[in-house]
Amino acid sequence: MKRAVIIVAGGKGVRMGLSTPKQFLDIAGIPILCRTVGQFRSFDPSIDVLIALPAQYIDYWKRISQAFLPEGSYRIVKGGEERFHSVKNAINALSPDTDLVGVHDGVRPLVSVSCIAQCYTTAALKGNAVPCINPPESIRTVLTDGTSKIIDRNTVKLIQTPQVFHAEVLRHAYAQQYEPSFTDDASVVERFGEKINLIDGDRSNIKITTLEDISYAEYVVGKTKKVH
Amino acid sequence: MKRAVIIVAGGKGVRMGLSTPKQFLDIAGIPILCRTVGQFRSFDPSIDVLIALPAQYIDYWKRISQAFLPEGSYRIVKGGEERFHSVKNAINALSPDTDLVGVHDGVRPLVSVSCIAQCYTTAALKGNAVPCINPPESIRTVLTDGTSKIIDRNTVKLIQTPQVFHAEVLRHAYAQQYEPSFTDDASVVERFGEKINLIDGDRSNIKITTLEDISYAEYVVGKTKKVH
Repeated sequence: MKRAVIIVAGGKGVRMGLSTPKQFLDIAGIPILCRTVGQFRSFDPSIDVLIALPAQYIDYWKRISQAFLPEGSYRIVKGGEERFHSVKNAINALSPDTDLVGVHDGVRPLVSVSCIAQCYTTAALKGNAVPCINPPESIRTVLTDGTSKIIDRNTVKLIQTPQVFHAEVLRHAYAQQYEPSFTDDASVVERFGEKINLIDGDRSNIKITTLEDISYAEYVVGKTKKVH
Repeated sequence: MKRAVIIVAGGKGVRMGLSTPKQFLDIAGIPILCRTVGQFRSFDPSIDVLIALPAQYIDYWKRISQAFLPEGSYRIVKGGEERFHSVKNAINALSPDTDLVGVHDGVRPLVSVSCIAQCYTTAALKGNAVPCINPPESIRTVLTDGTSKIIDRNTVKLIQTPQVFHAEVLRHAYAQQYEPSFTDDASVVERFGEKINLIDGDRSNIKITTLEDISYAEYVVGKTKKVH
């Protein structure tokens, strides 16, 4: 079973207002993206890791990662305009014998090895697997007239990554034309006609988008002592 | 303009697996619920604060809060079986000349004074105000057959507190029979026939439910140095 993971790290730091994009910031001394790669390599030391990076950060990434990741432990592909185009570039770089491909947000370094394992195992059996959690808050839907209505939060799931697929399915799904409604890989594969299999994610597998999230992450990695 | 806030602190610590319910845990040396009360008193020093507490924690709360909150700065009402019943008990204890009532989660101590001010101001003008944020993740809806479908995340809002209402509206809305679909006060008032006004909340106004959330909160209060 040949596995690959596409790690999308296209952030340019704009939203956080920082000069360093957030995927390169440290959590307890180790850059976020190094931690993310490390979790997938802990799951499967022979996994093919493809990192989609903005062209202008490739050299910078090589410099900061060399102390933490052995040479040859990942490959780099150039990021595209949207997440969709980055994933597509990475799919084109996959080795043809790949069976399963995960797509993961570079800024989710807290993903557990057991969550990764469950996603790949379920995808092997059912074609795909997408981790999700229940929303901790009430949910409202905004209607076209600008008003809103409560919706039963038990019918709503917040979607995480890694989203894992049979390689052939992902390849064909990404042959579709880009649409702005493609906010994640499950939405691309679903539009292609596949049913999506949701599985339980972890609440702590957060997408790091603020400095507060970094202190949350430092607490989590300090507690679990999972340092790569 | 006479303002009140009902602070719901009915948690019994079960979910976090702790002997101390989370509303009483410390953030940088100050119990969460004291911080929450402090934010509303910073907004309006004459606001009527009603705290709905489980009966068995009333003495404990008085003991831990006395170093942080002046005597007479809040009133206590007994918590009910569900959140709905706690709020209803507090409504019955409101002074009859109250104009505006907010309902707030005791475990949201990071609410900013400016967010509180905006909720009360909007509610004064429009009848109610409910703060919300955009979901940071993709969203799927689970259908009755167990399958799921992506929904446009721009049409979905995660709902926060304080939810602020004209006192008379809230009083009448809570005269309705309890239903399990009443997950927050907006849902009760909406069922009573009122339109809900959503306003922009803050991403950092989190509901503290895990120990990781506490370290997030310690970072936020350390940064803003807003200690009461």
